[in-house]
Amino acid sequence: MKYSEMSKEELLTLKAELDERYKDSKSKGLNLNMARGKPSATQLNVTMDMLDVINSTSDLKAEDGTDCRNYGVMDGIPEAKKLMADMMGTTPDHIIVYGNASLNIMYDQVSRAYTHGFLGNTPWCKLDKVKWLCPVPGYDRHFAITERFGIEMINIPMSVDGPDMDMIEELVSKDDSIKGIWCVPKYSNPQGFTYSDETVRRMASLKPAAKDFRIFWDNAYVIHHLYDDKQDEILDIISECEKAGNPDMVFEFASTSKVSFPGAGISAMAASKANLDDVKKQLTIQTIGHDKINQLRHVRYFKDINGLKEHMKKHAEFMRPKFEATLEVLDRELSGLEIGSWYAPRGGYFISFDAMEGCAKAIVAKCKEAGVVLTDAGATFPYKNDPKDSNIRIAPSFPTPEEMALAADVFVLCTKIVSIEKILESK
Amino acid sequence: MKYSEMSKEELLTLKAELDERYKDSKSKGLNLNMARGKPSATQLNVTMDMLDVINSTSDLKAEDGTDCRNYGVMDGIPEAKKLMADMMGTTPDHIIVYGNASLNIMYDQVSRAYTHGFLGNTPWCKLDKVKWLCPVPGYDRHFAITERFGIEMINIPMSVDGPDMDMIEELVSKDDSIKGIWCVPKYSNPQGFTYSDETVRRMASLKPAAKDFRIFWDNAYVIHHLYDDKQDEILDIISECEKAGNPDMVFEFASTSKVSFPGAGISAMAASKANLDDVKKQLTIQTIGHDKINQLRHVRYFKDINGLKEHMKKHAEFMRPKFEATLEVLDRELSGLEIGSWYAPRGGYFISFDAMEGCAKAIVAKCKEAGVVLTDAGATFPYKNDPKDSNIRIAPSFPTPEEMALAADVFVLCTKIVSIEKILESK
Repeated sequence: MKYSEMSKEELLTLKAELDERYKDSKSKGLNLNMARGKPSATQLNVTMDMLDVINSTSDLKAEDGTDCRNYGVMDGIPEAKKLMADMMGTTPDHIIVYGNASLNIMYDQVSRAYTHGFLGNTPWCKLDKVKWLCPVPGYDRHFAITERFGIEMINIPMSVDGPDMDMIEELVSKDDSIKGIWCVPKYSNPQGFTYSDETVRRMASLKPAAKDFRIFWDNAYVIHHLYDDKQDEILDIISECEKAGNPDMVFEFASTSKVSFPGAGISAMAASKANLDDVKKQLTIQTIGHDKINQLRHVRYFKDINGLKEHMKKHAEFMRPKFEATLEVLDRELSGLEIGSWYAPRGGYFISFDAMEGCAKAIVAKCKEAGVVLTDAGATFPYKNDPKDSNIRIAPSFPTPEEMALAADVFVLCTKIVSIEKILESK
Repeated sequence: MKYSEMSKEELLTLKAELDERYKDSKSKGLNLNMARGKPSATQLNVTMDMLDVINSTSDLKAEDGTDCRNYGVMDGIPEAKKLMADMMGTTPDHIIVYGNASLNIMYDQVSRAYTHGFLGNTPWCKLDKVKWLCPVPGYDRHFAITERFGIEMINIPMSVDGPDMDMIEELVSKDDSIKGIWCVPKYSNPQGFTYSDETVRRMASLKPAAKDFRIFWDNAYVIHHLYDDKQDEILDIISECEKAGNPDMVFEFASTSKVSFPGAGISAMAASKANLDDVKKQLTIQTIGHDKINQLRHVRYFKDINGLKEHMKKHAEFMRPKFEATLEVLDRELSGLEIGSWYAPRGGYFISFDAMEGCAKAIVAKCKEAGVVLTDAGATFPYKNDPKDSNIRIAPSFPTPEEMALAADVFVLCTKIVSIEKILESK
């Protein structure tokens, strides 16, 4: 029965019962963390063999003869370019392989636009105003980068097909101070939505007023499927932009942080030749190059895209039960109550929950009091400000399935109590 | 006999003979590169065992329990901080451990000053003019960073005791647009000079007009001795700045690029707590952290500062003969001719040669024609402009001692011919 259709008395009775259960929960002294998309020890264990493929007897020459132990090579060894290109669905000529963090590439790209401008355009530090489109809910670390550079962020609503393209087309065509958009196009953070073909094609065909408008296409979960049989597919943004006559409009990012080891993986950017040439002008001044031994380690371990896919099946085997345990509790406990909505993603790292308006902060706080830590409410919006105080991100990757079920129990309990309190306010 | 005291006829006779020898040299089809401070394969081979210390059976927990395979830790695992601090002669509380390239730290520090300013000071992009002091000859990649940001570079003459401190004190005290200075204080690039205690103390005691003036102290060769018995020492700039009441005035940099593997080493910055806190504000937005597995690999291989020192003795064993082979040829062939000067460094990666004014470019070109590649003349100066066209950097690290002797033979021959041509111009 919908909570909103229950009488005040019914709600109070129910609440008393739930409060009792909450008291029980608290007394258990739980200590569960569903806050960040952090791999579990089990996940890290399946990659340990990677640490054996390079040892003191290895030939550390890349396929083009480069001694990976020495200086040289700014854009990645050829076989690493190929591996990352295949993972991202593009070709090696579009790739620069970087160090251990794609976030660092994104930061540096924004910073470079700010200090030097893209392809000869005015550096953003010389402009009065720079704005950015932010599909919401989204990834807090994206928003932190644009906030750091004083860029004004504009919320764009998301649907299962991706961000609201009508709104985006309208905004970018009229306002040349809008310089970019953050996208997590596949298994989006946090909702797990994948942009439809139409969304990708419309994105690639944008006609921005700003010549230096860039799509920041963070393909973080491109091979992070939960199922063998149900997998989302996404069009290649690089070639779609080429076809639409906008080859320079996109930067695509990916890494193996959630494939091999977070912090010890490799990352890459894909872009047009003009953009890559522009980047390299900075790169040769900024660094002596990235870790080629680690590039070699990744290529020799995974071998090719099929190796990557097989490896990600191992991840899916223990990720899936965590997602399913969580969704089972949400479905069983909250279906039909109309106090929240959620989506069962086919991949990625998160489940996104939309509570009744004005309830997210209270739910997160109540969970915390009972020893269940969630991502801060609001974190999925620019300026940490969720205008509806509704979205909560659940990260099942770190705990065990059993812990996830326990945590989800607490979560639904808190959601029920806070929702009843909200409804009672207006009764 | 000094060339300048020889008669025109004597010089012409000598030149004819040298020209013949040069023709012989050219016919040998040499292909030798003394251009960059690149380690040799022999040097890289002595570190191969490092690739065995981390394998699939290793416990990858840092001493504080951090799982080095996962996300987390922005400033380095404790044992890596300790190792880098000991190497740099400071304490772990002054250290942030970074990724594979100290150059990248330096670039990012300049970029951060440009976009956000140091410790609340005005971002440099908002200033009309930013200037920088550059002891010359110096490191081309330093100058490339400041040039990239449009910073006006001012040459400061070097002596065996370090840069001209009178000039520096005078300039920084009067001009608040001077925001920094590049220093390679120990076994300087390219001269191999080490700043005297007085130089370090005067540097630490500067009273710059600009509150955000910073010494960029690139201690790249801090443990790169050529001899066991003759080693330069340098004062710790961090504590000297503290003593002088200028704790925030310095950033010190170092890496293991020329200790373990270039590109696959670890790097660090040392600075005051206020500066480190300021940096971390950016770092938490810029990256998910650096490669902790590689930090662990380095610590477990070198163990401590003594391990580092022992390792560098192995390097010295094959570096020393290259330097000595070069210096032997210079001493034997050029002493007393007064057509150039050089210095026998006790460490570092280079030998610096000062030819007669107006001769460096011609010597480098003539060497190249005979198959011996040197660093471009001028490269050791800002804007690649050596006002005297005199300085040439010789990098003995990559070739074998035999190749270095061969290359040095060509070098002295070219130096003699070009010098004679120069002298003849005024006869």
